[in-house]
Amino acid sequence: MTTKTIGFFLFDDAEELDFVGPFEVFSMLSEAAKKLGHTNRNKVVLMSQSGSDITGAKGMRVGINCAIADAPGLDVLCIPGGNGTRREIRNPEVLSWVANTAAAATWVTSVCTGSFILAAAGLTENKNLTTHWAAIDEFGTLGLKGNVLRNVRYVRDGNIVTSAGVSAGIDMGLWLTGQMHSIKLARATQKAMEYDPAPPYSADV
Amino acid sequence: MTTKTIGFFLFDDAEELDFVGPFEVFSMLSEAAKKLGHTNRNKVVLMSQSGSDITGAKGMRVGINCAIADAPGLDVLCIPGGNGTRREIRNPEVLSWVANTAAAATWVTSVCTGSFILAAAGLTENKNLTTHWAAIDEFGTLGLKGNVLRNVRYVRDGNIVTSAGVSAGIDMGLWLTGQMHSIKLARATQKAMEYDPAPPYSADV
Repeated sequence: MTTKTIGFFLFDDAEELDFVGPFEVFSMLSEAAKKLGHTNRNKVVLMSQSGSDITGAKGMRVGINCAIADAPGLDVLCIPGGNGTRREIRNPEVLSWVANTAAAATWVTSVCTGSFILAAAGLTENKNLTTHWAAIDEFGTLGLKGNVLRNVRYVRDGNIVTSAGVSAGIDMGLWLTGQMHSIKLARATQKAMEYDPAPPYSADV
Repeated sequence: MTTKTIGFFLFDDAEELDFVGPFEVFSMLSEAAKKLGHTNRNKVVLMSQSGSDITGAKGMRVGINCAIADAPGLDVLCIPGGNGTRREIRNPEVLSWVANTAAAATWVTSVCTGSFILAAAGLTENKNLTTHWAAIDEFGTLGLKGNVLRNVRYVRDGNIVTSAGVSAGIDMGLWLTGQMHSIKLARATQKAMEYDPAPPYSADV
């Protein structure tokens, strides 16, 4: 039995799809593995600083399982983006917890401007990373440290995996599933989510 | 000012990404339009039968804005899938509300096995639709009426738009944004979500 524990650090004004994308991937792994007779499972935990429910950037209220002080040991830490990251990068208790938790985790991941929090916690200096395309300049303006790459869905540098904006967390979650479990189970998870995307328009504005 | 009201009917064991995908699309439209100086907005409402919060199929607790009895007038009704749909297709109060709400809405949409609820409410007889690939046989076994299409992300028949499984609701939401607002704003929404998907593995198992 391979069980991985994946913890999401959530906060007010976290972007909903940033965390629900990989949440769905990591949760679906267990279902897909079970159907194939594999014993791989993920346990997914939603955490906030106080343990109180949070309200996302687009207004969705989301239930929280525990306070960060009560977090279980994590194989994966995942931090979403959203406007709330600009508050959390100035929150010493959160940054200290992120730094300590990252030191003990096998993988440290972010989606969108969640990488701002990893950077503010001192985890990305001299490392390659990415973030939402519209936030790349701001990363530098804020004095955060790291080499931000453009036009890539996710970047792995050591055990840190940062994703581009919002929807890119789905791609990152599937990639990490292949690393943590197996390519076969990542494919089965992708199929269970019917993730065969076909954007109806080009994204050019 | 063009404001569209979009209501999600949620229930216990609704699949999280089924509704958060299009929720993110419809919510992001307002932000993308604002940045471009357009007055288009979406108002997004999360509803459940009683008005109580729901717990999704993968265990996420989600806050609800109102009971279906208190729903505002809707331009779009959106119904996600998930295991809970097998309970809701036998829930007369819900089916009656869905039928009445659909009759007054401009667009009636579903993701994944949400189409089971539309069918049980009598909305899909002699119509083309789709659902999750793994649920196509079950649709027939349950005696639901409609012509289920395979291998397509979403199907539009009249004002009914049904999506394939889980992640397909994102594509459907973007398509509908182009229909309701403009192609330009759909593209801007897609770019704001950085929806330039790149699944890391093939989905073949």
